[in-house]
This record gives sequence, C-alpha cells and structure tokens, in this order.
Amino acid sequence: MELTGPIELTDHRYGKAENRIVRIWRQTARHEIRDVNVSTVLRGDFADAYVAGDQRKVLPTDTQKQTAYAYAKQPGLQAIEDYALALAGHFVDDVEPVTSARVEVDEYAWQRVSVDGREHEHTWVRQGSEVRTAAVTVAGTGAERQAWVIGGMKDLTILKSTGSEFADFLSDEFTVLAPTHDRMLATSLAVQWRFAGTTDIAWDEVYAGVRARLVETFATHHSKALQQTLFEMGKAALTAYPVLAEIRLAAPNKHHFDYDLGRFGLENNGEVYYAADRPYGLIHATVQRADAPEAGPAWLP
Amino acid sequence: MELTGPIELTDHRYGKAENRIVRIWRQTARHEIRDVNVSTVLRGDFADAYVAGDQRKVLPTDTQKQTAYAYAKQPGLQAIEDYALALAGHFVDDVEPVTSARVEVDEYAWQRVSVDGREHEHTWVRQGSEVRTAAVTVAGTGAERQAWVIGGMKDLTILKSTGSEFADFLSDEFTVLAPTHDRMLATSLAVQWRFAGTTDIAWDEVYAGVRARLVETFATHHSKALQQTLFEMGKAALTAYPVLAEIRLAAPNKHHFDYDLGRFGLENNGEVYYAADRPYGLIHATVQRADAPEAGPAWLP
Amino acid sequence: MELTGPIELTDHRYGKAENRIVRIWRQTARHEIRDVNVSTVLRGDFADAYVAGDQRKVLPTDTQKQTAYAYAKQPGLQAIEDYALALAGHFVDDVEPVTSARVEVDEYAWQRVSVDGREHEHTWVRQGSEVRTAAVTVAGTGAERQAWVIGGMKDLTILKSTGSEFADFLSDEFTVLAPTHDRMLATSLAVQWRFAGTTDIAWDEVYAGVRARLVETFATHHSKALQQTLFEMGKAALTAYPVLAEIRLAAPNKHHFDYDLGRFGLENNGEVYYAADRPYGLIHATVQRADAPEAGPAWLP
Amino acid sequence: MELTGPIELTDHRYGKAENRIVRIWRQTARHEIRDVNVSTVLRGDFADAYVAGDQRKVLPTDTQKQTAYAYAKQPGLQAIEDYALALAGHFVDDVEPVTSARVEVDEYAWQRVSVDGREHEHTWVRQGSEVRTAAVTVAGTGAERQAWVIGGMKDLTILKSTGSEFADFLSDEFTVLAPTHDRMLATSLAVQWRFAGTTDIAWDEVYAGVRARLVETFATHHSKALQQTLFEMGKAALTAYPVLAEIRLAAPNKHHFDYDLGRFGLENNGEVYYAADRPYGLIHATVQRADAPEAGPAWLP
Repeated sequence: MELTGPIELTDHRYGKAENRIVRIWRQTARHEIRDVNVSTVLRGDFADAYVAGDQRKVLPTDTQKQTAYAYAKQPGLQAIEDYALALAGHFVDDVEPVTSARVEVDEYAWQRVSVDGREHEHTWVRQGSEVRTAAVTVAGTGAERQAWVIGGMKDLTILKSTGSEFADFLSDEFTVLAPTHDRMLATSLAVQWRFAGTTDIAWDEVYAGVRARLVETFATHHSKALQQTLFEMGKAALTAYPVLAEIRLAAPNKHHFDYDLGRFGLENNGEVYYAADRPYGLIHATVQRADAPEAGPAWLP
Repeated sequence: MELTGPIELTDHRYGKAENRIVRIWRQTARHEIRDVNVSTVLRGDFADAYVAGDQRKVLPTDTQKQTAYAYAKQPGLQAIEDYALALAGHFVDDVEPVTSARVEVDEYAWQRVSVDGREHEHTWVRQGSEVRTAAVTVAGTGAERQAWVIGGMKDLTILKSTGSEFADFLSDEFTVLAPTHDRMLATSLAVQWRFAGTTDIAWDEVYAGVRARLVETFATHHSKALQQTLFEMGKAALTAYPVLAEIRLAAPNKHHFDYDLGRFGLENNGEVYYAADRPYGLIHATVQRADAPEAGPAWLP
Repeated sequence: MELTGPIELTDHRYGKAENRIVRIWRQTARHEIRDVNVSTVLRGDFADAYVAGDQRKVLPTDTQKQTAYAYAKQPGLQAIEDYALALAGHFVDDVEPVTSARVEVDEYAWQRVSVDGREHEHTWVRQGSEVRTAAVTVAGTGAERQAWVIGGMKDLTILKSTGSEFADFLSDEFTVLAPTHDRMLATSLAVQWRFAGTTDIAWDEVYAGVRARLVETFATHHSKALQQTLFEMGKAALTAYPVLAEIRLAAPNKHHFDYDLGRFGLENNGEVYYAADRPYGLIHATVQRADAPEAGPAWLP
Repeated sequence: MELTGPIELTDHRYGKAENRIVRIWRQTARHEIRDVNVSTVLRGDFADAYVAGDQRKVLPTDTQKQTAYAYAKQPGLQAIEDYALALAGHFVDDVEPVTSARVEVDEYAWQRVSVDGREHEHTWVRQGSEVRTAAVTVAGTGAERQAWVIGGMKDLTILKSTGSEFADFLSDEFTVLAPTHDRMLATSLAVQWRFAGTTDIAWDEVYAGVRARLVETFATHHSKALQQTLFEMGKAALTAYPVLAEIRLAAPNKHHFDYDLGRFGLENNGEVYYAADRPYGLIHATVQRADAPEAGPAWLP
C-alpha cells in the first residue's frame, strides 16, 4: 500500500529532562532533604518551530530548567506532587503558547544516619533502591483549567522464599515448564496510582500507606501466580485509599531457578537458587474504581 | 474526592521480555548472523488468573520463550518484521484465549571483519551503538484478522559541529540563555515508522533507506532548532517511502557547551566543548501522511 | 626503542565471574536469606592451554560455577568471608594444577518487611544500594598454606548538608575555584579492609561495626577536605578493630553546586543544589597499622 | 590476631575523573573531531591534607579539570597518548608538590556520514562500541624524569560462529560440562599494550595496526580455548610492533548456548543460540618481550 497524501506535523512536544535538584531545608539545626530528578514537557502552539524554524513561541528548554530550580526554592520542594502541580501550573498560566504542561519527578529517599543511637541532624545515607515518582499534567486556563496527578514508585525489589505456586496452566506443543507448588517469587515493582482529585490530599501519607499495603499484600497473600498477587495488591491499595481512582502495576518476574545439585549428591530443597537476569516474565495489571473519573491526558507521556 | 464504586480489573497483559536470541545461517561456508532481543506480550481472556488465581487459560511466559526460540529456527529469523509477524500471528491463531499479541524486537548489527582486505566468512564485530527495532501487533482471527508493523531504530548518536543555531526564542523572567548562530548539535535518535500495510515490503531495504534519509537530512539541513531538523528528517523519510504512514522521532539534545578558556588567555572558537550528561532537552515530533490508515493498537505497548 | 627478545607468556589467570547465587536457610518457619554474586579466579600451571591449546590441566570455568553453587549448599553460605575461604581452599587443595585461588563475593542486603508491626518470616525488600564485599586469596598446600581475607563495602552513598569546607588550597594559573567554608559533601564510598588473620573472627560483626564507625565519623567530623574525612574514617575503623591490618578508601566527590538563583531575585543560602554527574573528584587513602603483616597477594585481582 | 602498632597514612592519591571533552579542529571546512573522557590522578606531598586538613599543597581537582580542558586547546588534542603525556608532564613539572601524575583517557570513535556517496565535512555518527584507551604516567623532574605509556582498547565485541572448540579438559566431581569441537566463540576484549619508549611513535598507526592484528588473529586462528586465542592475539601484536614491550588481554567468554529445540522436533545444528548474560568465563593473559624494560609504575592506577 502506497500513500500519496500531504505530509503533516501532527503530535509534538518538547521539554527539559532530568534536572537533578537537591533541596535542603535548614531553618533549624535539624536539616531536611529532598532529592529529585525533574523532567518538564510542554505542549502547545509550537508548530512554527518545527515547520518553519521560527522560535518566537518557543520557551527554551534552558528556561524550563531555570524555572524548575527556582521553584525548588519558591514555592519550594516538599511533596513532589505539590511541586509538580505548581511548576506545571506556572507553564500553563504564564507562558502564552503553552496549552498543557507535564512535570514528572523521581524522588530518591535518604535515611538519617544514627550516631550514638540518635538521628544525626544533617547527615543521611541513600535508602533502598526504590524511587518515588509523580507525574502531573495541567491543561487549560481560567474556567477550563484541569489537573491530573499520578503518584507512584519504581524499583522496589521484593522477594518471598515461599507462599507462591504456578500450576494448572495452559499447555501447547511448546510447553515444557513443570508446574510447581512452592517457588521463590521476586519482582521489582513499578506502580502508579491516579488520584481522583488534586486538592486536600496528604501526598506523603498516601505514598507511605500505599507502599505499606503493597508490601504487606505481597508478603501475606498466598500466590497462585504473579498476576493474582498484583491484582490483590492493587485492590488493597484502592480499598485503603478512596482518594485513588486507579492503580497500574508492572512487575517483572525475576526468576530464581532451583539449582540442580542432585548431580553432586546434594539435596536442594529450595535452598540454593540461580538468580537469572534475562529473559523475565513481565506482568501488567490495572485495577480501577468503577466510579473513577475520566483519565483524560493523565497517562500521556 | 473519595470514591466508593466497586474495584475492578481493567487492562491487563503479560509476556516474556528480553529473550536474547542469536541466529546463524550456515548453509554455506559464508555464515550470516542475526542477533536480537525479543519480547512477547499477550492480551486476551486472562482475567481469571488475576482475579481468581486460575491459570487454565494462561500460556506460561516460559512457553512464549520456547516459541520465540523455535520460531528463530523455523520459519526462521531474517528481517525482524517478518519474524515478529509470524510469532505474533502464531499466538493469536493457535492459542485460544489470546485476542491480540505484540512482539517487539531489538536487533544488534554486526560487521564482518576484514582479513587481508577480504571479508571473513564467520567472524564479525559489533557495529555501532545503534539498534534496529520492530514492534508488531496482530489481533483477531479469520476475517477479523489485522496486523500493524512499526519499524525503527534507536541509539543512533549523531553530531554536527556547525550548521546549527538557536535564536529569536521566547523570553520570560527565567530566561538567561544567550542566542547563538553557530553551535554544535548532537543527539541520540529514537525513531519509529509505521507501515501503511504489512505485505510486499522490503523491510531491510526500507530500514537502510530511512536511516540514510535521516542521517543525510541531519547533516545537510541548516538547523534553526532541533525541532525543525526533526520535522525535516521525518518529511524526508516519508517522501522517499510511500509505504510509510507515519514516523515518530524523539531526540535528546545532547548539550555540548563551549568551554570558557578566556579565563586562561586562550581563544575558544568552537574548538573545545564540555559534553554534558544531564539535564538535556528532549524533543518529540510526529510526521504523518494525511491519508494514513488508522493506527489502531499499533502504538500500544 | 625497538625490542627483539623472544615473546613469552608471563602472568595468566582465569575463572568464572558473576555467579548469582541466592541461599535460603529454611530450617524453621522464619527463613534467612543470603544473596551474592561470586567470582572465582585460579592461578597455576595453565601455560600449556595458552601456548599449546592443551586443556589437560584446565578445570573448566563451568566446573568452577558448579562448585560455587554446591558450596552454597555445603558447607553453606553464611558470612561471605567463610564461604570464600572454603571455596578458594577447595580449589587449591583438591585441584592439582591450582597454586592459588581467589574468590570475590558481593553481597546484597535484604530487609525483612513489616506486617502489622511484626517482621515477616519469609518476605524481604532489597535494602539500600550498598554492597558488602569480600576478596579471599588462598595459596599453597600443606605447611605452605596461606590465606588472606579482605572485607569491604561499596556504593554506600552518604551526604552531609553542612560541616564541610574547602579553602586555603594551592593556586596556579588554571585555578578559578572559590574557597568555601560551608558546602555540601557527598560521596559513594568504596572501602576495603584487610584482616591481620583469618581465624576466630566475627565477620558479620566486624562488617557492621566498621560500617558504623565510617558513617559516624563522616557525620560528626568537621571536614576541611574529603581527604581529611577519609583518613579520619579509616583511623576510626582501625582503632575500633585491632583485627584489621589496613583499610583502603576510595571516594568520588559527588559535587553538588549551589544553583545561581540571584539572577531571578531569589536568595539561595545552601538550599537549592544542582547534583552533577561528571566530572567528579576522586580521592584515595590507605590507612595502616605499623605492625601490619605483609599483604602478599591479598590485593592482587 | 590483634594489632597494636600506630595507625598511619600510607598510599594516597587524588584527581578529577571523567572530564568529558570534545575537540573540534576547524581550520578548514572539513572539520575533525576527537571525543574523550579524561581522568587525572596526582601523587606527591599531600599527607598534610589527609592528616591535618591542611590544603596548602593541594591543587584542587577543579584546577585539574580546567587544565585538562585548556590543554585540549593548547598544545591540543590529537593522539591521546601525546595529549596525556603533555598534561601529566605539566602537573609534574609545574606543580611543586606533585611527584608523579597519571592521565587516563578513553576515546570514542566517530565516523563521517556519507551524503550522496561523499563524506560529509562536519557530521559524524558514533562508531562501534569499542573505546580506545591510553594511560600515561610521568614521574620525577629534570634528570630523574621518566614516563610510561600504555595504549589500549576496550569493549571490542567480536564473535565467530565456528572455528572454536573446548575439549580434553580436566575433570573432577563437579564437572558436568560436555566437550565440544564446534562452538560459537564471543568476547568483549579489553587490551592494553605498554610501549618500550615514549618518543617517535606513530600512536594512531600503532593503534590501528594492533587492532587489525588482534581481530585477524581472532578470526583466523582455530581456537582450542579462549586462552590459546588470547595468547596468539598478543603474540601477533608484539611481533608486528617491536615498539611494544608487553600486552595484557582480558576477555570475558560471552557464552552462547545451543538452544534445545529437539524437544519440539526441530534440529539445531549451531543455528539458534541463547546469548547468556551471567555468569561468564573471564580469561587473562599477559604476553611480553623477554627484553622488555621494567614496567615501573606503568600499571599503577
């Protein structure tokens, strides 16, 4: 099939990715830290830059960077959802050609170090591999103004050494996998939750609470498959937090294979595993409230 | 806003990611190599696995892996678009609960080594950092059967030391960037092109041709902004290949800053640069034929 | 200068790198986990394999892998120093051509998850980015038998938001850095400590104790330079643990630059930083007891 | 064994790592590019900084960075060995407390793009994954002045689909590997060669020539083991270049396993492979001229 129609610019967007910002709050001797990676994306009336090389409506990505740093000072950087709402709102409100702005933030956690059993006032170590995330979209001005907030986490690596099985599955001519009723289950979770609204939300509290529900459910739910575990995790989070409309979970099945030690006259009853890199199963689930408001552009990158 | 509706599973999918397959064709003394990374994703009637832990309709991800390797032998692995069409078609046709399948392939290029000025028959070195990609979706059976093919490339790092400017842009109170009429322009391209059809296409030829058009346009087009360069590159590719419906380009602006050597009494006329890692501008463009067929699920991950 | 002498094989060694082993101890309902990455290296009478292609004295790297897994079962994998001593000892004692063996182990820490305020019996999350390390060398048999043990850690990322300065340094014509009396100090520590002996040592306890001393000293010592901080950290560790002969510290200075917000009418008193990737300062220090025994091949890779 | 001796600073060094410098030569319309990553390390009279926090003899790592960029302009950055010799020489000659300096350089290769069959004057794409390296040490001043130059390459990924075997190896109770007389052999080479002298050497020519010898030998030599192949490669390089004193090769055996397709009724005669990530064999060889001058500190990091 050959096409002959005119060639046109359709979707386009641009921004500044991976602004690494550290914010220290030092009003008292006990400092606080927020360590983030911020990316901004603008949509709007920028076609002339693409089609004609005319930058008159293009706010430089360098300016977006400066603004991201300035907003870390004022209004300031506390909960990343609030920061992202303020920054995205600024681009839409104050920069004429911008019709919508998306701000994505990764936050790295730090833990205060302990000295003589007491928390130190200005020293921390990086905590865990997990990263808290936010993705905020603001579109329209005045009465048309709308906003969407997605919270989340990624790279939470979690493992259980029993309480997981995988059996009674569909077989075809390429199926050689043996069913198992006791296996190790490990994954590195990437989860995002969409809030029903954008105001009066205790962002940090919801983050901590959802994380706790996810982890507890993974631990205590007897798993017949990673699919089931993910669904139960999502359900537990939504049940606990009615401010959430939807939760999306992506989980690689980080395979741990029982190592064959029988060849050497050794028993291996779930004791020695080979932790494989690739390939890995990859399971996705979306769990949603039936009365969730429309997602609109919330999931658009 | 608090929600009270029932909690439901909505979108879900699963598959096996990153099957690393190398295929050698050795009918003659002159061997051929294809080196790929294959990921499969199935959509269909799998809700019971999530909601009830019932695997009776679930084809294991291990089986998907076995099939990916078996299909590399037969029908075989030549152009990755053909291989992905065959593999995705198999899942939809032969596995009852599957309603649609997506197969994504990354291909790593190898270059024959030269011995005494002649190409060696069975030895290669990895060529470049760029990766060829394909993403194929097959849905429906019988008369409902449809397929979509996206070709592409990523990690093509390209740089020009002149012929690029960025000036006359929008300014606000956070704008401190100086306009420039001669700068280095460097990026690492990720490009995907959607084919209008799925049959009678010389996949390898289109790949080589699109790559050549992209590179030539980047080199010869005087750039007023990376946005403009991307649009021209996309337009050149679509113009040359009427079998393409749409092309999507994503390009980080890999900033190279003139190093301030004036402090040391040295002139620096575009000679010494600091190559920065982060942050970076990130520009997206979609260029499309007006008579392109609907994309359907082609871009769904 | 042109050389004419005969061409000879001199140093050579070989092994199996990155065996990913997970060991679960499940004698009781409360499981224990050890998660490691093991590399083995053999030295010995292997010249014929290199020079003549004769493998008769070469124990395959595959066999080294099998042995690493088998030894995780029995004698078992608890403290990585003990495991490495046993495995290296086996190669030297039981494989004739081996004259010395080195086993290097990285250990990833896991933290039990908490459910209803109580530690779960068989579920963990990956803890921190830091990695515990061991490098053990065993050489000789019978009366000639010797062993060396190095413990350590890497990727411990630590940051203090005040209590660090850098001033009064040497200047030359390329020096433009401004002195500072209050800066952020951040690093990602790689530390290795050599034990004076190899027996009667509480490996896990020393690891925890050295880590605590390093962290406490980083936090509480007022730093005039990262060099000074490293020396004090090393001294604190050796002082606390007379079983240590020597400690080597390598620390990238992960620069955090005060962001210039004055351009936007905002004060920035150590509140908003740009966390840079590259380049970075890189500081090394070795701190040693004057009566330390000879290191021998302990540091040889 | 417990030690009681005084605790002392022994070895120490510091520098600036990973200065990313791009140098464009633009005297004519046909530009030339050199793209490097430079690390500097100084040794000398710096104990006071560690022990007493006294920086008076410490040249800041920031100054080392400035100097690395300034030297890219003048004397200039052509062959990386020459650049490193000049930069290291400067630190030793011009900065009083420095007794020796080491400069390590990684160079990334770029290939001119082709437009209408002709090389473009100012546009390139990144070529291959391989990296050229240099490590230069300069020590002493005046009559004591000495220098050592090591050239090299890393990340050269090379594969042959036949012409390799591994059999007749040593067996013990953990040996389960089957011998093979036709296997795929793949590796990612890291090679360093030490020059006998430092003057009158055509650095770029030696680099290209050694690379060609290594690649040709890998291709044409029938391999009884990776050990043998490495030795032959090293010998070929030294034979061709009498200016070399020594060559060190490190090669991971990137295992490609024949995929078991017999389960599915398919033959697999070296056609379909699983390319494994970890673990991998890791083979080291040093090949040397018998009349090589002493290495001195050449290999010291």
